[in-house]
Amino acid sequence: MGESPGESQSIGDEGSMLVEQAKELQEAAASLVTRTSSEEDALRRRVALLDSHINSVRSRLRSSKDFDKLEDELMRARYILSEGDAAAFLPNRSHGRFLKMFLGPINVRANRKDVQLKVKEEYNNFRGHGFGMDVYLPYQFNFTRAWLLYLYSGLALRENILRVNGSDIRPWWIKHHYCAMAMALISLTWEIERGPDCSQKQRGVQLFLKWAIMQGVVMLLQNRYQRQRLYTRIALGKARRMDVVWGETAGVAGQLLLLCPILFVLQGFEAYVGVLLLKTAVAGFGSDWQVITCGVLLIVMAVGNFANTVQTLVTKSRVKAKIKRGKSRQELNQAYDDKGS
Amino acid sequence: MGESPGESQSIGDEGSMLVEQAKELQEAAASLVTRTSSEEDALRRRVALLDSHINSVRSRLRSSKDFDKLEDELMRARYILSEGDAAAFLPNRSHGRFLKMFLGPINVRANRKDVQLKVKEEYNNFRGHGFGMDVYLPYQFNFTRAWLLYLYSGLALRENILRVNGSDIRPWWIKHHYCAMAMALISLTWEIERGPDCSQKQRGVQLFLKWAIMQGVVMLLQNRYQRQRLYTRIALGKARRMDVVWGETAGVAGQLLLLCPILFVLQGFEAYVGVLLLKTAVAGFGSDWQVITCGVLLIVMAVGNFANTVQTLVTKSRVKAKIKRGKSRQELNQAYDDKGS
Repeated sequence: MGESPGESQSIGDEGSMLVEQAKELQEAAASLVTRTSSEEDALRRRVALLDSHINSVRSRLRSSKDFDKLEDELMRARYILSEGDAAAFLPNRSHGRFLKMFLGPINVRANRKDVQLKVKEEYNNFRGHGFGMDVYLPYQFNFTRAWLLYLYSGLALRENILRVNGSDIRPWWIKHHYCAMAMALISLTWEIERGPDCSQKQRGVQLFLKWAIMQGVVMLLQNRYQRQRLYTRIALGKARRMDVVWGETAGVAGQLLLLCPILFVLQGFEAYVGVLLLKTAVAGFGSDWQVITCGVLLIVMAVGNFANTVQTLVTKSRVKAKIKRGKSRQELNQAYDDKGS
Repeated sequence: MGESPGESQSIGDEGSMLVEQAKELQEAAASLVTRTSSEEDALRRRVALLDSHINSVRSRLRSSKDFDKLEDELMRARYILSEGDAAAFLPNRSHGRFLKMFLGPINVRANRKDVQLKVKEEYNNFRGHGFGMDVYLPYQFNFTRAWLLYLYSGLALRENILRVNGSDIRPWWIKHHYCAMAMALISLTWEIERGPDCSQKQRGVQLFLKWAIMQGVVMLLQNRYQRQRLYTRIALGKARRMDVVWGETAGVAGQLLLLCPILFVLQGFEAYVGVLLLKTAVAGFGSDWQVITCGVLLIVMAVGNFANTVQTLVTKSRVKAKIKRGKSRQELNQAYDDKGS
């Protein structure tokens, strides 16, 4: 099949035309990237400046009488900065070691608010479904242990990503999940079926499973209450939507009365299982390092959770007292205004 | 301490000024985000159009005589598109299930070429150090198993991130790491110390460890060769820098002669360990599902690796033949030109 020189010519032209177009697009892309990043840098500097200005005014006036007057406006300014598109230009939070360890130096910060909210939403779903599974399927020991490892790794990764995206999740909450991850990993190397110290070990495993189920139930309850509470807070404009409601303890007032005892019981049970495991180790039955480490981890988690629950309750009661004080002053002002009119 | 009304006034002004500034920045951010994303969308459409145009020309002319003439230009156009800033605007690759499972819906695509290259560099370091550790510390069984789990999860996550960032890493390579991840997880639930079938199981564990060490040594060799080869290819402008050199088999010509036998031996050993584990299970000693699953996984990995090695060698020899053909034609042209002058 012969080809005319003209056809061959046009094919050659097509090739060089494609190269030309590619060059053109490359130049357009380079100039867009340069322009955008310089504009973004400028905006980032302005946002950082205003953010630190708000902080300095806040700390300068904290002791002054006028603070109450100013606080609302400061909160409003901060809310505007952190809730809208400007949030993407707030100073970057460090990614932290955990994310670098698993993902390398990739950036996980979303630069659009709607994406950030999707991440938050998905985190709640993951937590809900994860612990739902945790409650229903704990009788196949191997599966449960692997599942717990996946669940806690996933939670730790997602919480770190949320933190980078501006959520004010409590640091202890993430550390708690590191501990739980380590425990799930260590529990995988537990040998349970054979050996002379079988009954003691079996008991340890049973307790471990019961702890996992109980933890799952509490998490499910909490997840539901925290979502409700978050939606209420968003509706009130008090919370930025990226917040994960604080740790083990947050809940709507009435529900807190229900959650608190359950949380304290769980923490007590956690410590009890930990002490029991250590006892077993000391008694010389299971001198495996796994038993000792799991015992110590459980006690650490119990103490940490307890300290955080108490701290949250104290903060809450302080905030409540303040609101009450604010109200009575408002009522006073109201009365004064009524008088004046 | 009394305050003058003027001071109180100025503090109030400061508050509303901050709110005003926050609003202003929020508006600036919103308009920047809108403008940038519309410009980016436009560029993205143009890049996608050119990319598909190059593809269609390529497939239309593949059978034509003029293809050789055109191929260089097509490759050049594609290189310009995929190696510079325009690369960030190439059509998005789906994030895939694995990343969604662990990270949620966060975007891991870097929009700057230098960040993408940093990701690639760090992946190579991670692989090098990871398998270095793998070779030196395999005698503490529990630690090794946990380390292998972390190593393969990290590799699978990073490789998925590389894929999203435009690397042409072979799909089998990632699947291989999923298999290895599963095996490391399952090996954690292996019980080794006690029980009547101890010697058989111990042997399985020994073989598993030997496989891990061997795998580590091969990976280290490969990592070194692949980096060299990648740098050579980049220097030649043939490879885009995001490429992870193909799978188990790529290497510089001479080094390939060294690597290939090692690879085939490893694959044979892999299959041998797999068959041995299945044999143990059939003999009724270790009827644990772990032994059977690990055996099957090892055989799957061995077969997959073998198929991929052979496939790569075939591709290589084809490319070589083509280059040779190209050369001889060039010599012919050269001879013709010499004659003509």
